[in-house]
Amino acid sequence: MNVLLIYAHPEPRSLNGSLRDFTIQRLRQAGHSVQVSDLYAMRWKAAIDADDSTDQDPDARFDPARDSKRAFDSGTQREDIAREQDKLRWADTVILQFPLWWFSMPAILKGWVDRVYAYGFAYGVGEHSDRHWGDRYGEGSLAGKRAMLVVTAGGWESHYGPRGINGPIDDVLFPIQHGVLYYPGFSVLPPFVVYRSSRTDEARFADLCDALGQRLDALETTAPIAYRRQNAGDYEIPALTLREHIAPERVGFAAHIE
Amino acid sequence: MNVLLIYAHPEPRSLNGSLRDFTIQRLRQAGHSVQVSDLYAMRWKAAIDADDSTDQDPDARFDPARDSKRAFDSGTQREDIAREQDKLRWADTVILQFPLWWFSMPAILKGWVDRVYAYGFAYGVGEHSDRHWGDRYGEGSLAGKRAMLVVTAGGWESHYGPRGINGPIDDVLFPIQHGVLYYPGFSVLPPFVVYRSSRTDEARFADLCDALGQRLDALETTAPIAYRRQNAGDYEIPALTLREHIAPERVGFAAHIE
Repeated sequence: MNVLLIYAHPEPRSLNGSLRDFTIQRLRQAGHSVQVSDLYAMRWKAAIDADDSTDQDPDARFDPARDSKRAFDSGTQREDIAREQDKLRWADTVILQFPLWWFSMPAILKGWVDRVYAYGFAYGVGEHSDRHWGDRYGEGSLAGKRAMLVVTAGGWESHYGPRGINGPIDDVLFPIQHGVLYYPGFSVLPPFVVYRSSRTDEARFADLCDALGQRLDALETTAPIAYRRQNAGDYEIPALTLREHIAPERVGFAAHIE
Repeated sequence: MNVLLIYAHPEPRSLNGSLRDFTIQRLRQAGHSVQVSDLYAMRWKAAIDADDSTDQDPDARFDPARDSKRAFDSGTQREDIAREQDKLRWADTVILQFPLWWFSMPAILKGWVDRVYAYGFAYGVGEHSDRHWGDRYGEGSLAGKRAMLVVTAGGWESHYGPRGINGPIDDVLFPIQHGVLYYPGFSVLPPFVVYRSSRTDEARFADLCDALGQRLDALETTAPIAYRRQNAGDYEIPALTLREHIAPERVGFAAHIE
């Protein structure tokens, strides 16, 4: 299997760095091919702007969506963007690994999403009609591939529990797992989350590697989160609200899981 | 009143640019002082790294939290970071204005949060004991100030409704409103959200300005979202879960609103 690891931490000698090294080794020992996008090491450009294509008219009004589509369609994207899209095409499984900063990704990883997810590649794909609202949420360019988050958090597990002050971890990660991964077609595996990340001694690190190793060994067999497909009958189109008879008592993020 | 507008869009001739100009004019006409951090125009550095302080030992292991604290305490932060913190101290109200990209902020704005929110400034503030878990979620360096989001989204309002496929807008914005704004002490006003942002003709733009203008006129009097205070008795400490008798039937983000 081809595995792409998108990794975002500034310090190789960190817990994240050690988990990254463990992940690569474990996957290669299992016979998988691994590519790594180490965003800090690559000095990844985070901010989408008019320099993201080679043919942008400097006097034209820059439109992030429209211009990313033109560049994607005409082969005039910046090379760093096109290269990441090629890696995504190559991958069977993608792992995003990052520390949870302010309840989301580090900026450099958000900038990978903003720039690599071009119009025509990750969104604006497929037919738009009164029965099909684009190939997204279960369909799309990345359908058939799997994705998983590996996340470190400073807070305690209880802080991210059902009644924890930070909100449930599944809800905190929903905009990423559902909005960034499921949207263009990935099947999303349950996340691997490390809590109290600053309190990791050697014994705990060994336990973490055991647990992560089991998840990596099971990448091909783990059941994905059962997000509902947009165009398979559960949603009204174009309102994109759940039909009345679908989980009629439920609202919010969890309603979008079967 | 002093109003700080943190603005993140790459194109001044966009809907966001027009709403920004309207906002500045409306606030100044009402007699407020306005400062703007136009992150694209400032070429804001998005990725936190060892260059964010002037006294980082190049051979030392970089720790984003610990090193931001050292730099904050010793006055060795990069000047761009210190300047934004000064603007936050100056402000009575802060507006974050941005397009919703992939259900979160643009990377350049996330990088403003990641870098300006130093340890000792926006987190790691106050006593940690078995009755008080730091000055956060209702207390903190920015307590007494107000904050509001102004957000444009490409999707329809129904897509962000209680049963909409993207998730309810209040939940999509919770990691920002609760996690980024309420956490260091801001009182958070309900957001101003523009849906179907790419379908804005002159008549609709006039309507949007009317609605936004009313929100700006009422910045000082609008009731904030009633998020629960961490250290005022609603939460177990240190588990930081809601006490049994507090909204006993509720879980998830909404449980943290009174």
